[in-house]
Amino acid sequence: MARYACKLAYDGTEFSGYQVQPEKRTVQAVVEQALGKIHKGQPVPVTASGRTDAGVHAKAQVIHFDSNLQMEQQNWLQALNVHLPSDVVVEQVSKVDDDFHARFQPIGKEYRYYIHHGDVPNVFRRNHALHSKQPLDVPAMQTAAQYLLGTHDFSAFCAANTAVVDKVRTITNVSIQPNDGELEFSIRGNGFLYNMVRIIVGTLIEVGTGKRTAKEMETILASQDRTQAGKTAAAQGLFLWHVDYETDPFKKEETPG
Amino acid sequence: MARYACKLAYDGTEFSGYQVQPEKRTVQAVVEQALGKIHKGQPVPVTASGRTDAGVHAKAQVIHFDSNLQMEQQNWLQALNVHLPSDVVVEQVSKVDDDFHARFQPIGKEYRYYIHHGDVPNVFRRNHALHSKQPLDVPAMQTAAQYLLGTHDFSAFCAANTAVVDKVRTITNVSIQPNDGELEFSIRGNGFLYNMVRIIVGTLIEVGTGKRTAKEMETILASQDRTQAGKTAAAQGLFLWHVDYETDPFKKEETPG
Repeated sequence: MARYACKLAYDGTEFSGYQVQPEKRTVQAVVEQALGKIHKGQPVPVTASGRTDAGVHAKAQVIHFDSNLQMEQQNWLQALNVHLPSDVVVEQVSKVDDDFHARFQPIGKEYRYYIHHGDVPNVFRRNHALHSKQPLDVPAMQTAAQYLLGTHDFSAFCAANTAVVDKVRTITNVSIQPNDGELEFSIRGNGFLYNMVRIIVGTLIEVGTGKRTAKEMETILASQDRTQAGKTAAAQGLFLWHVDYETDPFKKEETPG
Repeated sequence: MARYACKLAYDGTEFSGYQVQPEKRTVQAVVEQALGKIHKGQPVPVTASGRTDAGVHAKAQVIHFDSNLQMEQQNWLQALNVHLPSDVVVEQVSKVDDDFHARFQPIGKEYRYYIHHGDVPNVFRRNHALHSKQPLDVPAMQTAAQYLLGTHDFSAFCAANTAVVDKVRTITNVSIQPNDGELEFSIRGNGFLYNMVRIIVGTLIEVGTGKRTAKEMETILASQDRTQAGKTAAAQGLFLWHVDYETDPFKKEETPG
């Protein structure tokens, strides 16, 4: 048996999220089906860095699985992609140490969120960006976002129905920048609570439209009360962009010499 | 009665092309259905600058229709987009002269075609670019493309089953440039034959992979024989990008004074 890590990109539009659910089309299910075919029907469970919700995309989700098949990495890539539907692509496969764990070992994650502002939606980005007709005050949003930096209890920015007890997380980086006619949010931290990025973006949008002041971010955060924050922004603008491990599982090994 | 011109963007992925066909989902059909709803069931036929095939997109298709409804342009925009599915967006509506004709009056068109080159497809561009695993010799393709410039009989680059008799067209501009990790083809001319851009791109790809020399473009063109040219490139990479009229129907009128 050997352990493999994969970097997955997927378009979340047609999925009921990452995690397996009965009767639903999920990313985990189609990946496990593809692995099952490669392993002649033998089930091969996969473990991801974390779930993503229905409609949320991944530019670089990380999963791991164990297999007794011996294949070159290029052959794994080909075999997996042949059996996957066109909205999931395995971009890299890497043999990793037996104790590598996609879910327990990330030291950080980056999410991005895209907003298209205009009178009418951009038809080619309808599933990959939120459309907003209202002009947004970007400097105010940038100011508000700075209150998120550092280590805080993020209860105010966590879906109320979560089972997680410890809601302290550290945000290391947050930026809001114009990019190719859209507004691109990037947020990095050591971990994220359920719906945390979408609630943060939803609240920042309310700052951008003038419904709240930038300074209110501080009060909302301190309240530790979900009802104080803004609406959960729509799923389609959100991308799991990058998962960081202490040792990059996909780093090409240097040839010694 | 007044005549209106609309600029439409659509994602061709889920359409059986532009033109109405029985039992098929087409762009023309959904636009005429939207107009029908706005006109209380009264049929409102629309005329486009030209058809696009199944899977082909439009960044700026132009259509016209006649209506006895009097609305501000902003209200037309809103009323149409409310009744259209999310993969068609009316971006502009303009009241035009009664003799404006979307199909007979274009003086030029621009098409673009996108190719993504890489080991694995870009999942977010799977319906909007052709994926090629083979490296492409871009300078050779650029050299080959230059033979298309000017006025020629383009029979070699026209689907064999076309009814059009005069196959002489003028290409005024052709470029092949790297753009955001993809190869972007832009081709402008006074008119295009059925499948012409896709056959041109398919032939240029064969030059790019070394199957043909750049110089062969000249021979193929001179042959006026479809069987001499390359394969028709896949629909999903193609966009109707712009339609040119002598007077831009969407140009905002200057306020006199």
